[in-house]
Amino acid sequence: MISIKQAIPRGLSVARTLAPRSFRLVYRQSNITPVSFYSSKVIPLTAESYADKVKRDERYSKLNDSDIEAFKSILQDSHSLITNEDDVAFFNEDWMRKYRGQTKLVLKPKTTEQVSEILRYCNERNLAVVPQGGNTGLVGGSIPIFDEIIISLGSLNKIRSFDSVSGVLKCDAGLILQNADEFLKEQGYIFPLDLGAKGSCHVGGNVATNAGGLRLLRYGSLHGSVLGLEAVLPDGTIYSSMDALRKDNTGYDLKQLFIGSEGTLGIITGVSILCPSRPQAFNVALLAVSSYEAVQKVFVGARRELSEILSAFEFMDGKSQLLTSRHLKADHPIESGEYPFYILIETSGSNKDHDDEKLEAFLEKAMEDGLVDDGIIAQDETQVQNLWAWRESIPEASTIGGGVYKYDVSLPLADLYGLVEAASERLSQEGLVDIDDASKPVVEAIGYGHVGDGNLHLNVAVREYSKRVENVLEPFIYEWIQSKKGSISAEHGLGFQKKNYIGYSKTDIEIKLMKDLKEHYDPKLIMNPYKYI
Amino acid sequence: MISIKQAIPRGLSVARTLAPRSFRLVYRQSNITPVSFYSSKVIPLTAESYADKVKRDERYSKLNDSDIEAFKSILQDSHSLITNEDDVAFFNEDWMRKYRGQTKLVLKPKTTEQVSEILRYCNERNLAVVPQGGNTGLVGGSIPIFDEIIISLGSLNKIRSFDSVSGVLKCDAGLILQNADEFLKEQGYIFPLDLGAKGSCHVGGNVATNAGGLRLLRYGSLHGSVLGLEAVLPDGTIYSSMDALRKDNTGYDLKQLFIGSEGTLGIITGVSILCPSRPQAFNVALLAVSSYEAVQKVFVGARRELSEILSAFEFMDGKSQLLTSRHLKADHPIESGEYPFYILIETSGSNKDHDDEKLEAFLEKAMEDGLVDDGIIAQDETQVQNLWAWRESIPEASTIGGGVYKYDVSLPLADLYGLVEAASERLSQEGLVDIDDASKPVVEAIGYGHVGDGNLHLNVAVREYSKRVENVLEPFIYEWIQSKKGSISAEHGLGFQKKNYIGYSKTDIEIKLMKDLKEHYDPKLIMNPYKYI
Repeated sequence: MISIKQAIPRGLSVARTLAPRSFRLVYRQSNITPVSFYSSKVIPLTAESYADKVKRDERYSKLNDSDIEAFKSILQDSHSLITNEDDVAFFNEDWMRKYRGQTKLVLKPKTTEQVSEILRYCNERNLAVVPQGGNTGLVGGSIPIFDEIIISLGSLNKIRSFDSVSGVLKCDAGLILQNADEFLKEQGYIFPLDLGAKGSCHVGGNVATNAGGLRLLRYGSLHGSVLGLEAVLPDGTIYSSMDALRKDNTGYDLKQLFIGSEGTLGIITGVSILCPSRPQAFNVALLAVSSYEAVQKVFVGARRELSEILSAFEFMDGKSQLLTSRHLKADHPIESGEYPFYILIETSGSNKDHDDEKLEAFLEKAMEDGLVDDGIIAQDETQVQNLWAWRESIPEASTIGGGVYKYDVSLPLADLYGLVEAASERLSQEGLVDIDDASKPVVEAIGYGHVGDGNLHLNVAVREYSKRVENVLEPFIYEWIQSKKGSISAEHGLGFQKKNYIGYSKTDIEIKLMKDLKEHYDPKLIMNPYKYI
Repeated sequence: MISIKQAIPRGLSVARTLAPRSFRLVYRQSNITPVSFYSSKVIPLTAESYADKVKRDERYSKLNDSDIEAFKSILQDSHSLITNEDDVAFFNEDWMRKYRGQTKLVLKPKTTEQVSEILRYCNERNLAVVPQGGNTGLVGGSIPIFDEIIISLGSLNKIRSFDSVSGVLKCDAGLILQNADEFLKEQGYIFPLDLGAKGSCHVGGNVATNAGGLRLLRYGSLHGSVLGLEAVLPDGTIYSSMDALRKDNTGYDLKQLFIGSEGTLGIITGVSILCPSRPQAFNVALLAVSSYEAVQKVFVGARRELSEILSAFEFMDGKSQLLTSRHLKADHPIESGEYPFYILIETSGSNKDHDDEKLEAFLEKAMEDGLVDDGIIAQDETQVQNLWAWRESIPEASTIGGGVYKYDVSLPLADLYGLVEAASERLSQEGLVDIDDASKPVVEAIGYGHVGDGNLHLNVAVREYSKRVENVLEPFIYEWIQSKKGSISAEHGLGFQKKNYIGYSKTDIEIKLMKDLKEHYDPKLIMNPYKYI
């Protein structure tokens, strides 16, 4: 690792340089599995925690023995049908240990046709279902609330084809994102989406939740890069646009409806996606700055001067780095002190010399202008991964006390960090927060996120989930966001957590149109009930 | 203009260089208006030309005097309501002089509320309507077939707001694309779409037809860059997601349905779109190559080596350049001979020196490898525009004989030019084609398009529109495309021309789902009938 004061010695008012140092980190933490957060404590049933908000809808049938027999007949494989209580428990819980469902049955179809037969049967029998991908969601969208049947896509996980001229990857929905990207790496391509949970999350789940992630700034949203989908509708109809080419203007773009529909219209079983060529050169720099105002100014400069090679611009507050440092049991890579804000900049391009020159010129100017106080630039792939770890480990570090309330919001850039300050102030006023005092329910409220996309992650690290904390945070946070014309969900989706808060981001007309659409495709409302809208 | 053999003298097997030369071209032909194609000949009524395919649907009411009074009362301005036969004629015809409708009434609302009142009235009265933007379409989508009322968006043409930090432009649907881009240029931004008709086409029409254009390769599709829309549904409901931020995962992305719906679900009245920073440096090179195979190889190399700075990769066959040369009354800029194929490459980036270095290294290698026979690089903005004219003038040059059959298709890259060869051969076999013999109905079949997007434009330049030629071309062309799993419309849409051919690109299930959706939003089917699906 090299200090930017070493790399860019010209014109600095402060000549102090930092010696390169090694990290104790050994890997990029990208494999967030539910298991890693297991503790002995039992998660309360969501239906009980939220008994005031949700009741089982009696329109849905209850599972009986002849249903089980019917599913066995469809799946023709005893391993694809899970009824054992201990095994089912794994699927009933989310990795944050916040939500727990009560399903008695998990189905793991191996083909699209099996998904179709299962849904047709459930629709006829009024059996409610929950599609589940990698179960890495953050809003309880993939967990049953009552006894909804879980349909796991985990066994539908093959690469179907890859066209090395066009860069079009076709795969099953259950393919793990990291597996997709590693396959593409060998072909000289890159998956146009990257996120911390890549080691567990599914490509289909990414599409169903319209995941944004770390490189949306460069490669755009899935609404642009997904070319076609295969999805099973509640009545068993298999919709497919998997053969669509990059440009196809023949009729309504139906696949778009499934992108971000969180399993409420049907189950995505296949994805066709346009993948960009893998950049040859990567640079990652971690910068320390003194104010959120400086973060904004550095961003505006980076977009202008790094332009086409800028592939990530992430900011993290000092509090998030303190928690991460404790979680990773490592000293922060910027040793010269604790700073209120940190920025991670990634560039990627086709010519390392050009990229180095652009990045160095940009950083030199940013330091001359007094915007950047200190910083380091990764010198090799290991250091790249280590710097990314300080960003990607924040979600796990946020659970250091036992749990976390996560808010993932879009706000105008100027207001982005104001929400963290407002939430922190409110928690302090109520006497609920202390990073070291274990008698307080809240450890810390931290902020980080994708500045380039106007996307803030506000994490409230807690020692336990409690109604008192929740009531202090909600609807306060949603009202604050609404007052700034923000969105209450930038990328995590609505799921169970935000079902009742959509009105803070959408008009009555929009909500009515959505409900009409839901009923149009799922008239019996069997798909992922009690959630979304 | 500089020859690439001058710019890149190293390692060339042929050392011949070309002297820089001046063009007789004076402007970039981007202002395609219907007027420029007017001739004295009367266009046949579409309803009569296609009497075997389409009949007036008697479910629609006929316009009466009390309807006119009602519209006058809504619009409150006599200039916004056109009934004069001569004035109405302008709106009844398309610029290719291929389609002619029979409306008696054109409405030009000035506000979204007026659009809403008009549609509510038409829906109640069963009056069919055609939304019309800049009327630059190529498939007869914006022309009435019978007496449908034209609702022109031409008076809804304001910029609503621009955020210079986020790059989000909000505008009325009737804003002319070139006006939008010129405004953005002053702000240091660029509209993420460019196409030949930019001087006339509307932003709303671009969105309604999901226009692709010249720089999709770089900035992606409108499904990714449009952030929000305002649209009026047939019953007068005003849907708006104009306040949406870059990332917003709160519910179904309804706006996507309107992108590419060609006025069949509602009328787009406002657009919110994310605009990229305007690149500081542009390069344009025009290359001559000997085969379509070489075109493909140069493309694969360009994508790899020019990577993040590649912003356009257009190919043109020699026949298209011959017609363009006659149309522009100018010699081709590459003087060393006539070549079977030409390539236009544009790069855009933030550092001119870096871009020059990348482009020169790439071209040097392409010449060393024997892929490129000759070429020139623009040396200033005028030369950039002049080179682009050789690509952008092709649509106009295609009408040199009086008319043109246009096919806009997606095909796998390897098959892209095969369609032009197949169509040419078939026309020759039938004895229909000769570039100089005025007794033959067809002048020439030419091919050009966006290689980077797998998008071919096949133009069959004709001396007159005739059933004989049409029957030789269709459904032959659609069957050929289907056999290669292509799309019969890459970007021009379905409109009237391709309504009956959607089955060549979409499955029965897809078509059924589309029809269901159409009926869901437009149960009385008043929106742009006889077209699309």
